[in-house]
Amino acid sequence: MPFAGRKIIIGVIGASTPERKLFQIAEEVGKEIALAGCVLICGGLGGVMEAVAKGAKANNGLTIGILPGNDSSAANNYIDIPIVSGMGEARNIVIVKSSDILIAIGKGYGTLSEIAFALKLNKPLIGIETWDVSPQIISFKDPRKAVKKAIELVRKYS
Amino acid sequence: MPFAGRKIIIGVIGASTPERKLFQIAEEVGKEIALAGCVLICGGLGGVMEAVAKGAKANNGLTIGILPGNDSSAANNYIDIPIVSGMGEARNIVIVKSSDILIAIGKGYGTLSEIAFALKLNKPLIGIETWDVSPQIISFKDPRKAVKKAIELVRKYS
Amino acid sequence: MPFAGRKIIIGVIGASTPERKLFQIAEEVGKEIALAGCVLICGGLGGVMEAVAKGAKANNGLTIGILPGNDSSAANNYIDIPIVSGMGEARNIVIVKSSDILIAIGKGYGTLSEIAFALKLNKPLIGIETWDVSPQIISFKDPRKAVKKAIELVRKYS
Amino acid sequence: MPFAGRKIIIGVIGASTPERKLFQIAEEVGKEIALAGCVLICGGLGGVMEAVAKGAKANNGLTIGILPGNDSSAANNYIDIPIVSGMGEARNIVIVKSSDILIAIGKGYGTLSEIAFALKLNKPLIGIETWDVSPQIISFKDPRKAVKKAIELVRKYS
Repeated sequence: MPFAGRKIIIGVIGASTPERKLFQIAEEVGKEIALAGCVLICGGLGGVMEAVAKGAKANNGLTIGILPGNDSSAANNYIDIPIVSGMGEARNIVIVKSSDILIAIGKGYGTLSEIAFALKLNKPLIGIETWDVSPQIISFKDPRKAVKKAIELVRKYS
Repeated sequence: MPFAGRKIIIGVIGASTPERKLFQIAEEVGKEIALAGCVLICGGLGGVMEAVAKGAKANNGLTIGILPGNDSSAANNYIDIPIVSGMGEARNIVIVKSSDILIAIGKGYGTLSEIAFALKLNKPLIGIETWDVSPQIISFKDPRKAVKKAIELVRKYS
Repeated sequence: MPFAGRKIIIGVIGASTPERKLFQIAEEVGKEIALAGCVLICGGLGGVMEAVAKGAKANNGLTIGILPGNDSSAANNYIDIPIVSGMGEARNIVIVKSSDILIAIGKGYGTLSEIAFALKLNKPLIGIETWDVSPQIISFKDPRKAVKKAIELVRKYS
Repeated sequence: MPFAGRKIIIGVIGASTPERKLFQIAEEVGKEIALAGCVLICGGLGGVMEAVAKGAKANNGLTIGILPGNDSSAANNYIDIPIVSGMGEARNIVIVKSSDILIAIGKGYGTLSEIAFALKLNKPLIGIETWDVSPQIISFKDPRKAVKKAIELVRKYS
């Protein structure tokens, strides 16, 4: 949980090849994160990860990408800080642990792994069109409401 | 996939505090793995991990435990080779990657993360009373049949 | 290597309980990194890691701390973005891989592991009062000159 | 440290492209580990890692290889159990943590990283023609004496 003065870090998880409609949702989530003054963490690659970072950067947000590979150049063009983990899919859990709260978008298997870790670690979790594997996942359709709820939850549990 | 002469490695994933009935199932899975001359890999701790290793050791099997923490003494008493990962839940993916095939028992969230990684990596996956998140999971009720099928699948894809 | 527009990321590695004189050196290194408009990455804990982050924050720099444990509250008070790796000392290699260049301060064993990784990965490496294990380590005494050289080297190899 | 009945695990660390004379030394170290009834852990690839595993297998030892990549087929032909870490050089620390004692052979940079981790974690460490970075490294020239000392030290500290 963030100390006084440290910005809230919101993790957004989602696939690199999502359904078409999820790109716009992810971009709006990124926009709302930036407008709220929060930091975005994501997996740094394409698809949902790129769309959410694009939305955040278009609104002067700060974007962190936790990359699976060994080369920062794999980061999409909207990542300010590429963290080069070199640990493959195990980087998914670094995203989960580094986020004050997570927003899951869509139904990729990588996303499912991150949802599972979040549930195991009791990390609050908001879902948009994602896996229905636990009542602990709070579902939203509207990106703006999802981000608003995320921030409320972080403030409540800090 | 194992080369000629290397033993088949079967990963068994399941929670440390499973439902009561899963202990016996796990122990029988371990027994069948050992009787078939395969190596068992698991998470090395209690619950399903301990029961499956117990079943394997009672039948002269070889058991590997990929531990999340920093101390080999956390391994249950049926682990021959404790691998001390020191990387927390990220060790789950090492279990998935090191197994020729996986058998998931029960419905823990850690197990769900391993199922998700197996699906993402296209690793064949057999389930006993586990998460129903993909048609790629081949379900069995009988431990003996589950292990038999696992070995068939490894042979087929090697 | 950073793309056009991405800020240079400088990793500073050093012990949590360094010799007394290294605190001031680390703080000046942090100051110079911030004044040059670069991002600081470090291990996020005390000692050299805290001093360098303090120097950067006092000059409006951005500071990233790659933490070994599972809790962001372990970060020192000058870390803007705590990355919670949960992978213990293995996080050292994430620091190395995420940095465009490294500055090693002092002679801790953790620092030696990071120097070894940097040498193995051919990452440029500047040393201040550190291990003398390779002619590839470029030694400096003056923090300002060390940071200046670091930036020159990143620009040269990008 | 191993419990009663668990075999001693000896980690051998060394480069994939060592000096010529180190191959024979590594092979003899592997032979002595196997003859003493201990388990060998190494990095699973070529060079020192292959020679030590070859020596162990020729004497009916059990060999574990902690691989950096994502494919068990990268293991050399003398590895019984390939552990597929998928975490690159960060697997070096898993070797260190999983060994009851370490024997370092030669002067690679990867080996230096493992020595550094062993020193940081206070893991006993024997060196053959390796880095001279600490008086805690116990040096030997003769492989047989090195393994004998390793086993003595594990017994002493268990």
